[in-house]
Amino acid sequence: MNEFELIRRLTHDLPRHPRVVVGAGDDCAVLDLGLPDRWVLFKTDAVVEGVHFDADALPEQIGHKALARCLSDVAAMGGEASSALITLGLPTAFDVARIEGVYRGLNALAARHGVAIVGGETTTNPERLLLSVSLLGSVEKTRCVTRSGARPGDAVFVSGVLGGSLRGRHLCFEPRLAEARWLTGHFAVHAMIDLSDGLAGDLRHLLESSQVGAELLAAAIPISREAKRAARERPDAKSALSAALTDGEDFELLFSVASRDAVPLLDAWKARFPDLGLACIGKILAERGVRLRDQRGVRPLEAHGYVHFA
Amino acid sequence: MNEFELIRRLTHDLPRHPRVVVGAGDDCAVLDLGLPDRWVLFKTDAVVEGVHFDADALPEQIGHKALARCLSDVAAMGGEASSALITLGLPTAFDVARIEGVYRGLNALAARHGVAIVGGETTTNPERLLLSVSLLGSVEKTRCVTRSGARPGDAVFVSGVLGGSLRGRHLCFEPRLAEARWLTGHFAVHAMIDLSDGLAGDLRHLLESSQVGAELLAAAIPISREAKRAARERPDAKSALSAALTDGEDFELLFSVASRDAVPLLDAWKARFPDLGLACIGKILAERGVRLRDQRGVRPLEAHGYVHFA
Repeated sequence: MNEFELIRRLTHDLPRHPRVVVGAGDDCAVLDLGLPDRWVLFKTDAVVEGVHFDADALPEQIGHKALARCLSDVAAMGGEASSALITLGLPTAFDVARIEGVYRGLNALAARHGVAIVGGETTTNPERLLLSVSLLGSVEKTRCVTRSGARPGDAVFVSGVLGGSLRGRHLCFEPRLAEARWLTGHFAVHAMIDLSDGLAGDLRHLLESSQVGAELLAAAIPISREAKRAARERPDAKSALSAALTDGEDFELLFSVASRDAVPLLDAWKARFPDLGLACIGKILAERGVRLRDQRGVRPLEAHGYVHFA
Repeated sequence: MNEFELIRRLTHDLPRHPRVVVGAGDDCAVLDLGLPDRWVLFKTDAVVEGVHFDADALPEQIGHKALARCLSDVAAMGGEASSALITLGLPTAFDVARIEGVYRGLNALAARHGVAIVGGETTTNPERLLLSVSLLGSVEKTRCVTRSGARPGDAVFVSGVLGGSLRGRHLCFEPRLAEARWLTGHFAVHAMIDLSDGLAGDLRHLLESSQVGAELLAAAIPISREAKRAARERPDAKSALSAALTDGEDFELLFSVASRDAVPLLDAWKARFPDLGLACIGKILAERGVRLRDQRGVRPLEAHGYVHFA
């Protein structure tokens, strides 16, 4: 049983509550707490030593990553982040200076995005450092984007470059909050997700939620320099394209808009975010599944994203 | 460095935000999200195998305890719980049936208190099961109770019986949400905290927040049968009174009200909650510190509560 099967099994029969707009299964939970124009976004995410970061990672980067992962999920809903609680699981012998470094990384990122750290707690987790972040945000009801709104004919976009994140980017990426806010303020984004498990995996999540399929254009997928270098250095490793499709932790935005918006969006994005790429990588189809088009034609995409304890 | 010193060091210079009514250092964070009459309560808490429960604890009780701890903190603010996210840290070899049992315990308690489980996530925590609960609630602005409002002359009350919780009660206690709601609906509660670290420790937290002291009446402290039995069975162990003062995980309510409210409160409580004790155990003093009065007179209380990694 893998992570996604387990989550489905645990959450499939949760009772429904009227204040829950979107429950388990999207980037954030969406709650109607009674505010006239806004919904509240609620998200939690944990990083564990030896799983999400190595023991020798810079403390500041550990704190940065823990909060940035949650912020990326708020971005994927089109929202703004507001307050966070931090749960620290501390190994038996811990170094106070290391934990203070973790907090410096957390606080610096929180300050940049106007997030208030409002408390948390410490506990013992004897063998390894664990950091769980719980984040509150909000979004205008008219601008909330879920995974489930993609429509046949939509153009599929991805920000940035993909693959090879584990060579360093996963510890210092900047969550795409400003970009997502700009997107939902200027275009009708039908569906959005942040890339944490890899393009092939997260695209499938979006497609399943939307009950549609997609065709990707291999040549359009933006491949990072790290992924290209890794493929050059180790010809026995996966190809650069495969890395861009399946490496996890890119934390870029994957979204769809109506095809008529595709060109205006690309033009406006280039003017607004000249330093961050945006690529139209394919289109949404009514037929389920993912197909990949390259020089040899169209075939089903076999690749999947990263899966915990598969 | 112990848990409380570390938390102080990490949180002493957090920037202030106007939406934060109460930040780090109370039972919950209190946020003003723009609702006209209510504040939002935000809390996170983790339980770890081998630390907060033994490996052979019933799965249902593990789930129950994880959520009940957070609910107890919402009770201590006078609030109502609304939505929860669950973070599961799963050991390398985990038993799906055990995790489903954990969720049964969580879901049953959530249903009793109208809490919507709105998602969460799983991660790997190779050596041991870890369960972190993130909880949202709310409270009327006029009924929110913090730790910091105790005044000299107040009467100090505690619900239930204290000590010996580790003999079983810590896995199946019922958070005092209904009792706290009734209290704040009928009396002006000046300050409140839930007992997690033991009476001696949590009373000190309340007193420090309120910048006051207290005198406790030894004979009035309600001691559990488990604590009395433990003291009888093992005369070399701590006395029953000492257990009631210092054992952790009672999850009862400790609070203060004006002395003129003490007798009406005791009478009304007995009529409303005939099966749950309420004891007036002392009074708030202007002079700092905790004193204990018994047959031999009054002396400073040396005992402190439970402290992680002291």
